[in-house]
Amino acid sequence: MIKLPEAIQEVVKSFAKLPGVGEKTAFRQAMSMVQWDAEDLTLFSSAVSSLQTIKFCKGCGVFSDDEYCSVCSSDERKDNGVVCVVENISDLLAIEKSNQFKGIYHILGGVLNPLLGVGPEQLRIKSLEERVEALNIQTVILAINPSVEGDATCSFIKQILKGINVERIGFGIPMGGSLEYLDSLTISKALENRKQL
Amino acid sequence: MIKLPEAIQEVVKSFAKLPGVGEKTAFRQAMSMVQWDAEDLTLFSSAVSSLQTIKFCKGCGVFSDDEYCSVCSSDERKDNGVVCVVENISDLLAIEKSNQFKGIYHILGGVLNPLLGVGPEQLRIKSLEERVEALNIQTVILAINPSVEGDATCSFIKQILKGINVERIGFGIPMGGSLEYLDSLTISKALENRKQL
Repeated sequence: MIKLPEAIQEVVKSFAKLPGVGEKTAFRQAMSMVQWDAEDLTLFSSAVSSLQTIKFCKGCGVFSDDEYCSVCSSDERKDNGVVCVVENISDLLAIEKSNQFKGIYHILGGVLNPLLGVGPEQLRIKSLEERVEALNIQTVILAINPSVEGDATCSFIKQILKGINVERIGFGIPMGGSLEYLDSLTISKALENRKQL
Repeated sequence: MIKLPEAIQEVVKSFAKLPGVGEKTAFRQAMSMVQWDAEDLTLFSSAVSSLQTIKFCKGCGVFSDDEYCSVCSSDERKDNGVVCVVENISDLLAIEKSNQFKGIYHILGGVLNPLLGVGPEQLRIKSLEERVEALNIQTVILAINPSVEGDATCSFIKQILKGINVERIGFGIPMGGSLEYLDSLTISKALENRKQL
């Protein structure tokens, strides 16, 4: 039997840890990397290694070279008095890309999930409270994905932030969506959230 | 706008070079890697880097720490006088895993594809000829995937290896396959390749 070189075994194992990558895909990807030239491999290797050195904003929690990210250090955006709470960095970037939100962000780092041992202490809920007070925030927008855990997290935050206007982003038919192909839960949410024209 | 750290951009770019990975998947994978601990990142990084040092067997072309791989240096397997020609290392490993082939291998490194500039010189066809002569091979089994280019490559090799028994692996219904779901080309090949019971 032909033995796989250790470097390939290690790359396969690492790839298989990524979301949506199984053993077979990982192997196929590793095999294609064997054909890369030395320069590309070195670049990739050093980029992976320097992921360790990425620093995060002390405010919202997004990556940032400075102590505070460009959004958190912008007076204009802080002065709006609105904070948008998201689960993770990808969600923050998606909202920022829409270019519609002019306040600051706060990354929770996940949602409450007692079964997986994620309680309020594991999330950045304490620091949310502190920031809301320190920055004189009037409105908190919860941009948390709809799920049982997400809903519970929203209720929890609503309870904690007394006297603050807590809102959740709207649910309904996505743009370009077709009623025919949508699940009934989305449709009932859309009916519930109807708006007078 | 929040800028992605350079390490993440580089990782995304590298992931996107892998087969079946687009910009979005690459980004999602890079974002999940940000959460890995330092040890895992270091392991992955050094494994990627050491892919450069992988050596290949001088005979068949599979990876090997020694000059010749375990199959090519086995007298028992050489003495069978059969060489199995495959496109790439993954195909070789797939055949070796079936444990049915007792000869030696030869990796072509692809198939003839004039449109992509792959001619006989770009493939290991010359060394196949040399090995067939040097090792006194009587039978060459072409385990090349069925495609227009694969078929052309097989005809080309058949022409070159005069006086040698050149065979191609069988086409038909795969084990566990269902006629209902198979394409008509496979079904016509299966009918053509029928066997008397």
